[in-house]
Amino acid sequence: MASIATRLIPAWLRHYSFATLPADVIAGLVVGILVIPQSLGYAVLAGLPPVYGLYAAIVPVIVYAWIGSSNVQAVGPVAITAIMTASALSTYGDQGAEQYVLMASLLALMVGALLWIAGRLKLGWIMQFISRGVSAGFISGAAVLIFVSQLKYLTAIPVTGNSLIGYLSSIQQFAQQLHPLTLLIGVISFVLLVANRYGGKWLWRSWLSARQAKWAERLFPLILLIVAIILSVIGHWSAHNVATIGSIPHGLPSLTLPHLPDWREAANLLPTAGLMALIVFVSSSSVASTYARLRDERFDANRELTGLGLANIAGGLFQSFAVAGGFSRTAINADSGARTQLASFVTVAVMVAALLFFGDVLAPLPYAILGAIIMASIIGLIDIATLKSAWQRDRLDAASFIAAFAGVLVFGLNTGLVIGLMVSFASLIWQSSHPHVAIVGQLAETGHFRNIHRHSVVTYEHLLMIRIDESLFFGNTDSIHRRILQATKDYSDAREIILIMSAVNHIDLTAQEMLITLNRELAADDKHLHFSFIKGPVMDKIEHTPLITELSGQVFLSTNAAVNALKDL
Amino acid sequence: MASIATRLIPAWLRHYSFATLPADVIAGLVVGILVIPQSLGYAVLAGLPPVYGLYAAIVPVIVYAWIGSSNVQAVGPVAITAIMTASALSTYGDQGAEQYVLMASLLALMVGALLWIAGRLKLGWIMQFISRGVSAGFISGAAVLIFVSQLKYLTAIPVTGNSLIGYLSSIQQFAQQLHPLTLLIGVISFVLLVANRYGGKWLWRSWLSARQAKWAERLFPLILLIVAIILSVIGHWSAHNVATIGSIPHGLPSLTLPHLPDWREAANLLPTAGLMALIVFVSSSSVASTYARLRDERFDANRELTGLGLANIAGGLFQSFAVAGGFSRTAINADSGARTQLASFVTVAVMVAALLFFGDVLAPLPYAILGAIIMASIIGLIDIATLKSAWQRDRLDAASFIAAFAGVLVFGLNTGLVIGLMVSFASLIWQSSHPHVAIVGQLAETGHFRNIHRHSVVTYEHLLMIRIDESLFFGNTDSIHRRILQATKDYSDAREIILIMSAVNHIDLTAQEMLITLNRELAADDKHLHFSFIKGPVMDKIEHTPLITELSGQVFLSTNAAVNALKDL
Repeated sequence: MASIATRLIPAWLRHYSFATLPADVIAGLVVGILVIPQSLGYAVLAGLPPVYGLYAAIVPVIVYAWIGSSNVQAVGPVAITAIMTASALSTYGDQGAEQYVLMASLLALMVGALLWIAGRLKLGWIMQFISRGVSAGFISGAAVLIFVSQLKYLTAIPVTGNSLIGYLSSIQQFAQQLHPLTLLIGVISFVLLVANRYGGKWLWRSWLSARQAKWAERLFPLILLIVAIILSVIGHWSAHNVATIGSIPHGLPSLTLPHLPDWREAANLLPTAGLMALIVFVSSSSVASTYARLRDERFDANRELTGLGLANIAGGLFQSFAVAGGFSRTAINADSGARTQLASFVTVAVMVAALLFFGDVLAPLPYAILGAIIMASIIGLIDIATLKSAWQRDRLDAASFIAAFAGVLVFGLNTGLVIGLMVSFASLIWQSSHPHVAIVGQLAETGHFRNIHRHSVVTYEHLLMIRIDESLFFGNTDSIHRRILQATKDYSDAREIILIMSAVNHIDLTAQEMLITLNRELAADDKHLHFSFIKGPVMDKIEHTPLITELSGQVFLSTNAAVNALKDL
Repeated sequence: MASIATRLIPAWLRHYSFATLPADVIAGLVVGILVIPQSLGYAVLAGLPPVYGLYAAIVPVIVYAWIGSSNVQAVGPVAITAIMTASALSTYGDQGAEQYVLMASLLALMVGALLWIAGRLKLGWIMQFISRGVSAGFISGAAVLIFVSQLKYLTAIPVTGNSLIGYLSSIQQFAQQLHPLTLLIGVISFVLLVANRYGGKWLWRSWLSARQAKWAERLFPLILLIVAIILSVIGHWSAHNVATIGSIPHGLPSLTLPHLPDWREAANLLPTAGLMALIVFVSSSSVASTYARLRDERFDANRELTGLGLANIAGGLFQSFAVAGGFSRTAINADSGARTQLASFVTVAVMVAALLFFGDVLAPLPYAILGAIIMASIIGLIDIATLKSAWQRDRLDAASFIAAFAGVLVFGLNTGLVIGLMVSFASLIWQSSHPHVAIVGQLAETGHFRNIHRHSVVTYEHLLMIRIDESLFFGNTDSIHRRILQATKDYSDAREIILIMSAVNHIDLTAQEMLITLNRELAADDKHLHFSFIKGPVMDKIEHTPLITELSGQVFLSTNAAVNALKDL
C-alpha cells in the first residue's frame, strides 16, 4: 500500500507543509489571473478560438503538477507551441473550425506520446541535441514570425503563410483591407503595453515602491484588457466592424477523442510532432533546470520528459493544444512565492472559474487587444543578447543562431529549425575534422613531453614526436594524414616517428587504414613509425590488425620509454 | 601565357599520351552506347520526356571532363538525382510539361551553384556530414521508392505521391486501370533483365568466355531494347494502347535560361536543392575516391565540388536536370579501359549522334521497357550488405541506416534524409555524452598510470586518480559529474582527488561550471581536487577563471608529479 501511495502521490504532496499553503495559494491566484490574457492570445495565435487557451491551462497543468519534475515550473499554452501548431495545421485551415480543433488536439496527443516514449527510453540526453545557439536562434525567429502574424489582428488584413516572406507578401496583397479603427485600437494598446513593459519600471517608480511598481507593470495588461472591454461596450466597437472575440462557451473542456485521421495524415504530421516535442522538451527543461539550480533542487531530464508527455497526452484528450513550460508564467509563479505545485492547482481553479462565470464578460474584447498583448510580450523572446555573447565567445555557435533565425524567417519553422541543427552539427564536424596536432619535445630532466611551440623542450634530430589531440575517425583522417606527412617533411632528418596516442579515445576503420598506409609510406622512405601511450580500448581494437602486426616500429607504453629506447639509435 | 594555359587546360589533356587514345576511344564508345537506355529511363523517372536523359549526358559531361577531380568518373543522369528532381517538383506536375522542364533545369542550376559555392569555401570536409550508414540507408530507401514508382510504366496504373505510402495507396486506388498487355511486356522484360543481371554470369558462361560473358551481360539491356522496338513495330503495340515514347526531337540541347520563378518559389526549392547538392557530392565523391584509391591517384574533395558545381550550372543552362557521378557508368568506363577524361568526350559524341540520327528509331519503344530496365538496375542499390556489416560492427551506424531507410519510405526523400542525419548525429551525441572515465593506478616502479581494472597497479588509499577520456562539453558534464561523485563515494577514504586531463582536448563553459561546483562539493566534504596534465589550449581557457583560482588542490604538470607530491600526505 505504502509503495502504491508513494508511486501515485507526488513527493511535494506527501510531505506537504501547511506553512507554505498561503504562499502557494497566493501565487496560484496571481498566475491564474495574470495569464488569462496571454492564454486567450496564444489560442488565437494557434488558429483556435480564444476559449481553447483556457482549456489548455487546465488538464495539462493538473497532470504536470502531479508528475512533472519541477516544483515551480508553470506549464500551459506558450507562444512557441501555439505558432508551431498553426504552422503544422496551416493546410487544414479550410476544413472548418471543428476539424481544425480536433487536429490541434491530435497534434498535442502525438507530441505527448513522443515525449512520454522518450522518457521511458531515458532519452533525456537528447536535450544536448539542440545547442544554445540553435534554440535561441529558432525562438528569436519564431518570435519575429509571431510578431508579424499578429498584424492580422491589428490591421484586419488577412496575414497568411508559413514564413516571413509569405506573411509580407500577403500583407502587400491585401493591404486595402486595412481597417483604420482596428488599427488605431491595436496601435494604441501596443504602444501602451511596450511603454509599460520596457519603461514601466521608471514610469511606475515615480509614484510607487519598487515592489508595487513590479506588480503595476504585471497587472497592466489585465487592466488594459478590462478598460478595452468597457470602451468596446460603450463605443459599440463591434458595430463599427472591429472584430471581437464574442461569447466564450460556458463549461469545462470535456473528454473528446481527437479526430483519428487516416494514417497518411498522421504520418504527415509525425515529423512536425517530433520537432515540436524536441522544442517543448528543450524549452521546458531550460526553464525547469534554471529554477532547479536557483532553488538548489535536482533536475531530472527523464522525469521532465514523462511529465510533459503525460500532460500533453491528457491535454490532447481534453481539447487542449500542445503545452510547454513557460518562462514568464514560471517567473511570475516563483516570484509570487510559490513553493510547490499546489500553486498550479489554484491556477487551474482560477481558469475553471473564468470558464464558468466570465464567458460573457469577455465577449466585447477586440482581437486587436490580444494581438497587441502578444506582440508586446513576444519582443522579449528576440534574444539578441545570446547572439552577441555567442559572437564573442564562439563564432560557430553564433553561426548556428543565425542559420536557425534566418532559416525560420525565410523557410518557416520546421525547415528553419532543421537548418539550424544542420549548421550546429556541421560546426561540430568541422571542429573534429580540424584537430589539434602538436609536435612535442621533452621537458628537460623530466619524463614529460610538451608542445615545442609552447615550452622550451629538448628534441632529438632523428626523433619526431607528434601528439594527436583528438580521436581518429573518417572525419579527420585525411587532415591528420596530411599534417603528419607535412611534419615529416619539415623535420626531414627524423627517421623515427613517434605518434603519441594519449588523447585518442576512439579509432575507426578508416583511421586504421590511414595509419596502415602511413606506416607503408614512411617505410618506403626508410622511416619507422612508433606508437606510444595507446589506451586500452583503442589497443583492444587494433592489436591483431596489420596496423600493429606490420608496424615498422614499436609500440611503447609511454613516450618516455619510446625516447629512452630510440634516442641513442 | 603558360599559366593561363595551365589553368584552362586540364592536366590530363596537357600531358596527353596518344598511346592511351585507343583505350579512351573504345571506353567512351562503350559507355555511350550502353548508358543510352538508362539515360532515357532516368529522364522518365525525373518526370521529364525521355530525350532529356540524353541532354543531361552532354553538356554536364563535357564540363566535368574538363575540370572535375577524377580521371575516370563518368557523370551523367543518375537514379538518385532523377527521383529527387521528381519529388522536389511534384507540385509543379500540373503546370504543363514546358514549365516542369524549366523548373528541373532551374533545380540543376541551384544544385550546381550550391556545389560551386561550397567548393570555393573549401567545404569538402562536409562530406563527413553523411555517415556511411545514412547514405546507404537513404539510397536503399530511394531505390525501393524508385522500384515501386516504375510500376507505373509496367502496369499503366498512375502511381503518384512522394513516399511508399503515397505510391501504394494510389496503386490501390487506380488498380482497375491495369493494362494487361503492358504488364505482360514489362514483366517479361523485367524477368529477363533480372535473370541476366543476377544469373547472367552462369547463363552466359555456358557458351562464352568469362570476358565475353561479362560483355554479353552488359549488352543485354541494349539488345532487349532493340528487340522490343522491332516487336513493337511488328505487333503495332501502340495501337493496342501500349504507351511508347514517340519521336525524340532532333537536335542538340540549346542554351535555354531556366524559367526564373518569383523568389518565393526559389526559396521553396532551396532546401531541397541543398539536400540534393549534399547527396550529389557525397555519392559522386564516394565513386571518385574509390577509383582514385584503386588507381593510386589523389582525391581532392574541393576540386570535386567545383567540378560537379560547374557541370550542373552548365547543365542547368542547357536543358539538363541535375547530374552526379554514377557508380555503374564509372565502372563500365574504367572496366572498358578508360585512362583519361577523353573517354567522356567520346561518350558525348555518341549521345550527340543518337540525338541527331536515331530520334525516330526509338519512337516505338514502350515505356514499360524503360521501367523494367530501371527496376532491374535499381535492385543493386538496395544495400543490405552495408546494413549487415554495420549491424555487426556498429549498432549506432545500423540505427542511422534504418532511420534513413524507413524515413524515406514513410515520409519521402527529404524528410527521410533529415531523419537519418538526425539519428546519426544523435548517436554521436550519445557517444560523447557517455564518455569513458577510468580510475587509474601507478604501474609499479614507473611513472605510468593505467586503468585499475586492466592492469595490476599500485594505488594509495588517500589518493583517487580519475582519468577522463573525452573532451568536456555541456553534453557530458552531467554524466561525468555523477561518475566522479560516485567514485569518491566508492573510494570514500580518498581525500585527494586527482583528475587526469590528458585526453581533454576542449572544455566549454558548462563543463567549467561543473568543475567549479565539483570543487566546492568536494571541499565541503573536506576533500581536495587536483588536476594533472592539462593541455595548453585547455589551460589557456581556464587559467584565470575561478576553476583554477579557487581550486582547493593544485595543478600538476603530470600525474607522476601529483602522486609524488601527494602520496606522503
